[in-house]
Amino acid sequence: QRERDEFPTLKNFKGLQFKSSDSTIYMNFRFRMQNRLGASTIDGDNLGIREFDARVRRLRMRVDGYLYSPKFSYTIQLAFTRGDQDFDDTGVANIVRDAVVFYNFTPNFYIAFGLNKLPGNRQRVNSSGQLQFADRSIVNAAMNIDRDFGIKAYYKNKIGETAVYHLKGAITTGEGRVANNTDKGLAYTGRAELLPLGAFTDDGDYSEGDLMRERTPKVSFGGGYSKNVGTTRSGGQIGYYLYEPVTLQTYFADAIFKYNGWAYQFEYIKRTVDKAITYNEAGESAYAFNGQGINQQISYLFKSNYELAGRYSWLEPGASIGDYQQETEIIELGATKYLHQHRIKFQLNVNYQTKQGVFALDGKGNRWGGVFQVELGI
Amino acid sequence: QRERDEFPTLKNFKGLQFKSSDSTIYMNFRFRMQNRLGASTIDGDNLGIREFDARVRRLRMRVDGYLYSPKFSYTIQLAFTRGDQDFDDTGVANIVRDAVVFYNFTPNFYIAFGLNKLPGNRQRVNSSGQLQFADRSIVNAAMNIDRDFGIKAYYKNKIGETAVYHLKGAITTGEGRVANNTDKGLAYTGRAELLPLGAFTDDGDYSEGDLMRERTPKVSFGGGYSKNVGTTRSGGQIGYYLYEPVTLQTYFADAIFKYNGWAYQFEYIKRTVDKAITYNEAGESAYAFNGQGINQQISYLFKSNYELAGRYSWLEPGASIGDYQQETEIIELGATKYLHQHRIKFQLNVNYQTKQGVFALDGKGNRWGGVFQVELGI
Amino acid sequence: QRERDEFPTLKNFKGLQFKSSDSTIYMNFRFRMQNRLGASTIDGDNLGIREFDARVRRLRMRVDGYLYSPKFSYTIQLAFTRGDQDFDDTGVANIVRDAVVFYNFTPNFYIAFGLNKLPGNRQRVNSSGQLQFADRSIVNAAMNIDRDFGIKAYYKNKIGETAVYHLKGAITTGEGRVANNTDKGLAYTGRAELLPLGAFTDDGDYSEGDLMRERTPKVSFGGGYSKNVGTTRSGGQIGYYLYEPVTLQTYFADAIFKYNGWAYQFEYIKRTVDKAITYNEAGESAYAFNGQGINQQISYLFKSNYELAGRYSWLEPGASIGDYQQETEIIELGATKYLHQHRIKFQLNVNYQTKQGVFALDGKGNRWGGVFQVELGI
Repeated sequence: QRERDEFPTLKNFKGLQFKSSDSTIYMNFRFRMQNRLGASTIDGDNLGIREFDARVRRLRMRVDGYLYSPKFSYTIQLAFTRGDQDFDDTGVANIVRDAVVFYNFTPNFYIAFGLNKLPGNRQRVNSSGQLQFADRSIVNAAMNIDRDFGIKAYYKNKIGETAVYHLKGAITTGEGRVANNTDKGLAYTGRAELLPLGAFTDDGDYSEGDLMRERTPKVSFGGGYSKNVGTTRSGGQIGYYLYEPVTLQTYFADAIFKYNGWAYQFEYIKRTVDKAITYNEAGESAYAFNGQGINQQISYLFKSNYELAGRYSWLEPGASIGDYQQETEIIELGATKYLHQHRIKFQLNVNYQTKQGVFALDGKGNRWGGVFQVELGI
Repeated sequence: QRERDEFPTLKNFKGLQFKSSDSTIYMNFRFRMQNRLGASTIDGDNLGIREFDARVRRLRMRVDGYLYSPKFSYTIQLAFTRGDQDFDDTGVANIVRDAVVFYNFTPNFYIAFGLNKLPGNRQRVNSSGQLQFADRSIVNAAMNIDRDFGIKAYYKNKIGETAVYHLKGAITTGEGRVANNTDKGLAYTGRAELLPLGAFTDDGDYSEGDLMRERTPKVSFGGGYSKNVGTTRSGGQIGYYLYEPVTLQTYFADAIFKYNGWAYQFEYIKRTVDKAITYNEAGESAYAFNGQGINQQISYLFKSNYELAGRYSWLEPGASIGDYQQETEIIELGATKYLHQHRIKFQLNVNYQTKQGVFALDGKGNRWGGVFQVELGI
Repeated sequence: QRERDEFPTLKNFKGLQFKSSDSTIYMNFRFRMQNRLGASTIDGDNLGIREFDARVRRLRMRVDGYLYSPKFSYTIQLAFTRGDQDFDDTGVANIVRDAVVFYNFTPNFYIAFGLNKLPGNRQRVNSSGQLQFADRSIVNAAMNIDRDFGIKAYYKNKIGETAVYHLKGAITTGEGRVANNTDKGLAYTGRAELLPLGAFTDDGDYSEGDLMRERTPKVSFGGGYSKNVGTTRSGGQIGYYLYEPVTLQTYFADAIFKYNGWAYQFEYIKRTVDKAITYNEAGESAYAFNGQGINQQISYLFKSNYELAGRYSWLEPGASIGDYQQETEIIELGATKYLHQHRIKFQLNVNYQTKQGVFALDGKGNRWGGVFQVELGI
């Protein structure tokens, strides 16, 4: 079983497993780290170093299991790096990433109570340990709905002999990981997925790259919607604090296709906000991102477990925040060596970022970037 | 053995235990989380939502054990949530809750060196995983003496054939978990307990509700005193920072009775301070709570492991802080389903809070509150 | 094998070890805590208490191991106390101490990618769990180069039949544990060691005190240099923030000798800076320490595993920071009882600190200090 952020990893896992002698306690323990060395250039045509991104990007510990009955399962995930703490946006050391209890009514229907990822866009729900580039796309960064505390329900079933569908819903606080007490404006999220050719091998619809080398074509189409009422943060569940509450609506459509080492994925996200720019008494402004974007990735995995991947991302800010954000595109190439699936891999990415649709090297704000990342985990 | 915050849990524990082949290292590892969904109303007669309290209230990891000899035992406890870090009062991520070494001279006499709970009021010394309501009382919240770093001594013995007594003392820094260096004003704490009918089953005198269904009546009477000299924090070991050091004296008297599924507990706390209100140079004030209060709880556990509990708490601030705090009473009802003792339980609490002794629904400051909490741990 | 901060502890470790059934995953888990009670006096001749240093000084968890092949080893270390988080200097909860992946080309040559200690002065590279005094010296405190993220290479070999040498190099960000993104000024570090009489028993050249009671004399001579270009912190990788970037150069020379229970160690460090004092727009200043110092320690371990140790440290600030820092000397005596090597020990230290070379008790700034520390770990 692949790591999947909407459900505990309980099956076929070869890590550290503990089961009490009376089988009432089951835990499996994992950790992973991502160390990276990246750099970006000053301009498109000045290849001097603007800054380095060299650090422990992620260091996480995770426990999944069940207690007293397989019907009560749980996931706990702790994150220790500065970047993972959301410290810079919130001023709080948010170490807890997941702390959620699942009650499994049937294998096809379960509910969750606690903190974990919302059923948002596919790339966000993919674990950061299941990505084929070192980072998710700029489209995801600008408009994903991240983690939130509340109640979630998951249902899946078949249509006919092959096709599978998933329905997911959540009612959550809307303020993300940092919140202690929250106002009465909540967040409502729904998502549906259709896999007309059947389930992916080993839950591969939430893992990038075709590491399983699907023997028959597999595809998943997904779509969803989230309304975050009266949030105080620029990205709803994430981001810096705004000066007034706003209501965000986010629309998702995505797809992933895999076959014989090839993988292609597509993601469209659109966000609207009732009040894009908020002001404090001193007249200073803080804006909530709104706009739309598309991310596409295509990859081929050689039998040597080297993968080549390409990515094109396009992000267009809404007119109301045109003073703060420009249209951005990124073209990125990635080479990955998978030593042990996604658990131990070496990634080398190079990208070119453009602003305002000007691809010329001397375009204002254009730049090159690159990153080498080692992932090690169990 | 029940979890007990004054001693490591070493016996009869069915969790994750590790013993080295030569028996010189013993560890038992536990975790628990509390996820809650609560709300309070705007007024006693306006049932609109004032705010939600929906979050991972606690997520803790704990290791108990001994090293190289059962005489050297230890307890380590880490807490990762924002609320548990005391972040909002101190601005520091206080992750360490317990880090204490015990030396056991005899099974009846041991000393502790390090950070753990002081021998204060009974409800505070109960682990937060052994409570029958989602939170401790407002009386505890206002006047408990929490954890502190220093030296503690514990002694117990019998009087006659049945009765048991405990003596506990501590000399500690008085500044709580956050302190690095401290001034020379320390804290001195003493506590005595008498159990005339003998020890509770499975250390039940420090666990709420009669989950053991005591076959014969058991009772414990306790009393104590703590003097915190020159503390810089509003609650001594806890709370926000004051502008000048103050000296707090806290008096405790409590009792717990259990028999055949019934449990009753009583707690009286009184606190005095030599200088209730402190000022900075700009003339702003910060006060140290002083006053008195009583908390009582009664419960019955049905054989189905459903429990009904009632609580009445009364808190009266001292005259010197009458401008900041009002007399508060809370009546609370709780229904709890224990699935696996206190380790996995579902709690539903409803309460009504009044101010200044006015019970009418339109009393100023009155409100309703409720919370649903799931606890899951090993 | 002793704990060593430049390499994972993989051999002969009697703690908690986990190996997957197919031998592809190996982890060993350790923790340790240091609880201390210290005090310093008001003056050399006024023995009133200036302040207490009573706290959990360190509480750390560490995992070492390899994944999928012994060639891929790793070390992870988390630190949870306020002091270990470098919170007071950075305002960030820096929990991650080590997160590093090693690739072992041969047993004698390996590289590291990630965050761990730089090959700086010997006492700093010694684990804080391998010290014979409760703290490292003031010379180390003022001029060590700590941990940093980047690439490191380690090589060792023999000269003739007995002598051993080590070569170590590192290119790192220069900003220490706290950094997310960094400017283009990096840090370059190199170090060489010569052990003419062969390797110490059980890696004892990076452990204080002769706990192995070397049967033949052993000595190691080391020297190194580190240049930190354009750092923004007062100590390079550590310390408070400066108002402008500076470039630090640090020179190290050290030696350790052990024989039959006797140990002697020597350390000289010198630091220069291109711009000692930086200013902000308001004219406030922040300085980077520069100067030189010597630390010497001598100890004898009795067969009862009691050790007596003496230490003399001298620290001289550079002329450019004479307004901020004075010449300081400390004489310290230590008595240590090792119950289980360095893993469980009791330490009692007493010291006398002088300023400006005036040893008289009434010298300005002189004072006495003492600390009792218990270390407990596996």
